Amino acid sequence: MTKIAIGIDIGGTNTAWGVVDEAGNMLHHGKWSTRDHAEPVDLVTHAIQDFRALFEAHPDWTPVGMGIGAPNGNFFNGTIEYAPNLDWEGIVPLRDLFQAHFEVPIWVTNDANAAAVGEQLFGCAKGHKDFLVVTLGTGVGSGFVVNGQLVYGHDGFAGELGHVTVERNGRLCGCGRRGCLETYASATGIVWTAKERLATYEGDTLIRDLPTLSAKGLADCANEGDALALEIFDYTGAYLGFALANATAITSPDLIVLYGGLALAGDLILEPTKRYMEDHMLNLFKNKVSLKCSTVPHNDAAILGAAALVWQ
Amino acid sequence: MTKIAIGIDIGGTNTAWGVVDEAGNMLHHGKWSTRDHAEPVDLVTHAIQDFRALFEAHPDWTPVGMGIGAPNGNFFNGTIEYAPNLDWEGIVPLRDLFQAHFEVPIWVTNDANAAAVGEQLFGCAKGHKDFLVVTLGTGVGSGFVVNGQLVYGHDGFAGELGHVTVERNGRLCGCGRRGCLETYASATGIVWTAKERLATYEGDTLIRDLPTLSAKGLADCANEGDALALEIFDYTGAYLGFALANATAITSPDLIVLYGGLALAGDLILEPTKRYMEDHMLNLFKNKVSLKCSTVPHNDAAILGAAALVWQ
Repeated sequence: MTKIAIGIDIGGTNTAWGVVDEAGNMLHHGKWSTRDHAEPVDLVTHAIQDFRALFEAHPDWTPVGMGIGAPNGNFFNGTIEYAPNLDWEGIVPLRDLFQAHFEVPIWVTNDANAAAVGEQLFGCAKGHKDFLVVTLGTGVGSGFVVNGQLVYGHDGFAGELGHVTVERNGRLCGCGRRGCLETYASATGIVWTAKERLATYEGDTLIRDLPTLSAKGLADCANEGDALALEIFDYTGAYLGFALANATAITSPDLIVLYGGLALAGDLILEPTKRYMEDHMLNLFKNKVSLKCSTVPHNDAAILGAAALVWQ
Repeated sequence: MTKIAIGIDIGGTNTAWGVVDEAGNMLHHGKWSTRDHAEPVDLVTHAIQDFRALFEAHPDWTPVGMGIGAPNGNFFNGTIEYAPNLDWEGIVPLRDLFQAHFEVPIWVTNDANAAAVGEQLFGCAKGHKDFLVVTLGTGVGSGFVVNGQLVYGHDGFAGELGHVTVERNGRLCGCGRRGCLETYASATGIVWTAKERLATYEGDTLIRDLPTLSAKGLADCANEGDALALEIFDYTGAYLGFALANATAITSPDLIVLYGGLALAGDLILEPTKRYMEDHMLNLFKNKVSLKCSTVPHNDAAILGAAALVWQ
């Protein structure tokens, strides 16, 4: 018999999940479109079908629990609450919805917190006690680790770096406020920047040839040396670097890990972000913070971290 | 015999100290001008003289340790490092300087961290696990408590909320950067605002009659209903409230305690700060954070907190 945990990473666009053993090996891997499930119960029904089929095919697996990372996921309540980047409104009792079909213990946390646990156990944050993981996906999330422990805050909602204001009266955010970091530094935010710049840019650019604007497409153009694409990454890094310098003044981490869609751009986002972060940094913290892109394969840190909640 | 600890709170202007027993009773209380001591060793010499005289007068006291809170005080190193609001430059080996005269254990920490410990043990943060204390003195400091523990960061310098940027290209800070919170929301910052506003204000104001501009004088004018003084507190609260809303998004405290010179203004600073904080707050955190001024007598939380390092 192999004891296994299910880890689920619910994102604004896709939900990735995996079957993970106690050593952190991913035994099986799957993906659903989050947006194809109009109601949370639809996703849960779909998930349960897939899990049942899988467990029948693997009678040697003994499920011992499930961990779920989700935007605005609440560790204390087992809920998703008012997530601006999901179509599911209000308070979603996610743990209860799964628990109705599943007898093992179920844990819910913020998707970025799950990624932080994953990086701590299996990624580049191994051995670090004070670090943060910033997820650059549909939105921007963050998981802060202080003295080796995840920061949950009094209500389980700590770590909303994506909703720190970086531009007074800036872009209108899904949260209803203006100028949040995630309107600039998410995979969605960089596309927004590209649209704005294209509207007035008169030079040649490969960006105009892209079938659809995406963070991936912009990275491809920048890798070809496209001047406008490079400028767009610089602009994005300026906001992200500014926010990270301010966050460093609060928790003084020695490592910041970028994670998720936009982090796949690697040095294209890392270089300007590091440059602007150091420009804005208080002397006390200059050149002390290591900035890295996640080294765990795409999305796996959040799945591994969510699954790790089961073993912890 | 009464076991006692010495608690010292080094501020940009004054240094307050006390003799504290294990129950947190302040048995003796003193004050020196920080600025009258050009070198740290001068303050240490002065302190040792005072302590020796005191111990001779109280042969029943048994000193068991000393705790020191200071701007940029480092718990790990026992030093003050590059404090912009002190005349002492570079790295001051404060623990070693005292240790040369004093055999008991000596602890150094950030002054705002000391205040946070004091509020947690003896003030309005009793029973709170996730809170922060913001010191509004010559500069702005902060002590973040997460899950019951002080946040030191990897290097012992966490909690520099005073150097979070609240205005791009704003006022030039002592740290060499522009737009730091402390240039607006410290006792010094509010005087700066008053000077700026007086230069162009054409109405009548009691502020012009003040012998010297100070946070205390401005509070007196505002308490008389002076329109310009009230406007100055509103302006100050706008910056402080903005910074506190952003900080809340990171650590999600249920309590924020204002402490130090400017906090003595009470509702004059509390009311606008709370209003702007809630205006800027992400929905998830709205109306969840209690904002209070310290209820421990002036400067005593930092002394009590520094002394408490000895017992902990």
